[in-house]
Amino acid sequence: MELKEEFISLAHGGGGRLYQELVHDVFLPAFDNAYLRQLNDSAICPVSASALAMTTDGYVVHPRFFPGGDIGRLAVCGTVNDLCMSGAKPVYLSVSMILEAGLPISELRLICSSMAQAAKEAGVFLVTGDTKVVEKGRGDGIYISTAGVGLFPDGKDAYPQKIQAGDRILISGEIGNHGLCILAAREELGFDPAIESDVAPLHSLAEALQEGLPDIHAMRDPTRGGVASVVNEWAGDGLSIEIDEENLPVSSAVAAASNILGMDPLYVANEGKLLLALPEKDCEAALKIFHAHPLGKNAACIGRVIEDGRALSCVRSPYGTQRLLDLPYAEQLPRIC
Amino acid sequence: MELKEEFISLAHGGGGRLYQELVHDVFLPAFDNAYLRQLNDSAICPVSASALAMTTDGYVVHPRFFPGGDIGRLAVCGTVNDLCMSGAKPVYLSVSMILEAGLPISELRLICSSMAQAAKEAGVFLVTGDTKVVEKGRGDGIYISTAGVGLFPDGKDAYPQKIQAGDRILISGEIGNHGLCILAAREELGFDPAIESDVAPLHSLAEALQEGLPDIHAMRDPTRGGVASVVNEWAGDGLSIEIDEENLPVSSAVAAASNILGMDPLYVANEGKLLLALPEKDCEAALKIFHAHPLGKNAACIGRVIEDGRALSCVRSPYGTQRLLDLPYAEQLPRIC
Repeated sequence: MELKEEFISLAHGGGGRLYQELVHDVFLPAFDNAYLRQLNDSAICPVSASALAMTTDGYVVHPRFFPGGDIGRLAVCGTVNDLCMSGAKPVYLSVSMILEAGLPISELRLICSSMAQAAKEAGVFLVTGDTKVVEKGRGDGIYISTAGVGLFPDGKDAYPQKIQAGDRILISGEIGNHGLCILAAREELGFDPAIESDVAPLHSLAEALQEGLPDIHAMRDPTRGGVASVVNEWAGDGLSIEIDEENLPVSSAVAAASNILGMDPLYVANEGKLLLALPEKDCEAALKIFHAHPLGKNAACIGRVIEDGRALSCVRSPYGTQRLLDLPYAEQLPRIC
Repeated sequence: MELKEEFISLAHGGGGRLYQELVHDVFLPAFDNAYLRQLNDSAICPVSASALAMTTDGYVVHPRFFPGGDIGRLAVCGTVNDLCMSGAKPVYLSVSMILEAGLPISELRLICSSMAQAAKEAGVFLVTGDTKVVEKGRGDGIYISTAGVGLFPDGKDAYPQKIQAGDRILISGEIGNHGLCILAAREELGFDPAIESDVAPLHSLAEALQEGLPDIHAMRDPTRGGVASVVNEWAGDGLSIEIDEENLPVSSAVAAASNILGMDPLYVANEGKLLLALPEKDCEAALKIFHAHPLGKNAACIGRVIEDGRALSCVRSPYGTQRLLDLPYAEQLPRIC
């Protein structure tokens, strides 16, 4: 079955022949694997675990292609990253696409190929999917919702996600790239060099950390709302978090763009970064693991957890001044992921 | 945290305070359960199974409220039904919402309460979710993508989904209600009595059939594309399917509306019906199980599988004439689910 059309139409979203052509000509060749090939409404997949992690995210990023990635790569990596932050091994993904009539099928092919490539990198299978089409003016090209299942082998537990006084906070690399990349691409700001999104699957970095460090207290990928939102969430129960501004890895391109645009990289979304909390004694070992991994080369220890009864998160400037890292009222940029 | 706004705005889709308010004031009270309450990016859930079924569907139904249900009930039931058609026990659901700025929060509350009610009926947990907001004119109120995980206890297998010559085809009740209900609601056709959607979770009916019948050859819920699309897919490998028109359960309201609108109920979507293929010898036993269940009261044996080398599906009129049930080029109605 081969698609003769160049653009998605409402008819591609029905249960009929055109839908079958879309599946057989676009989705199956891109995502082929034994689970997907069952082609039933549910994919049947083996489980060898006593617990699973389940997550979902909707992706509405605009524009859908940007330096360093596209909505497809984002949709796979974001879901993989949510899973592996819990300590689970990401395994199965589902994909629900809501297409706007008029989307060029060539773009859909590019997005699918990019999803397939990201799934291969992350070692996950896209096992089942669904596609709906809405009228022109009722969507924006393509929205993707991915859900993911990760497995915990017997005996392996989920991370506690519980910081303690004295913990150090580490970040796996430079912050702010994804959000500023999207803003620049959307507004056609033309920074030179262009800021590239950091979108990447964190599974192997998370696995290396988990294997090498017995005592991880919390692990998160700082996406929407940036590093500030995660540390804000972590602070509580009388524990505060202090971030050292001078230790924050920020690329010169992001620093310059942030200055021009009046944005704070601490609040900007990342899509391939990992934030870690663990006892001070394990800090050196963690940095060694980070620096040995391609996604952790610029990792740094950026802060600490203190017991001061205030339960606040703040950032300390090189001059010793402090400012509060409050939870923002809303994301600075809509539709960054 | 309490929402002060009456309408969804772009800011509700950020990672910030407004998003938190939306989660705590709308989603958590509606869906509360131990897995969701973890409030991490992934929900950690126990598994006791050697295999799982995974499925996803996007819901873009228009209008979002209709006689007999709404997009929320549909999003839960559709995913539950896909899972239990495979023989799995539906357990965990994820929900990704794409909201259009301007959606009244009162409508979102109604939809969530309806999702929660359907989840309760089906015995499943909404364990994790995500919400994005797009600009006015880039969506249509609300789109929902649900993904679901079902479990196979050790020793229990997935249905083979493999019809055989001599099989009988049974349907659990009257067909065409959902699609015609949506069409009538959308076009404000005002049929009297109103046609109600049949949207319902099929888990307990599927379970009863599975327990009572050792030799089910195939089970499917005929949604988009209707009964015709499923039998069309089942026919193949030299096996044809004959449907007896006079045995098809069709309500008088649906029959009348179909006549007026020139539609064939065989091609119209159902959202709470189950199509079964099994050996002729088990037909009576199956009908007994159907008729004892609230969702199977109007079940009937509607056709048979024959080996004629043609691999076609057709419907036979009471006068003995036959017409082909070809796969439609596209669904007759866009956005019915």
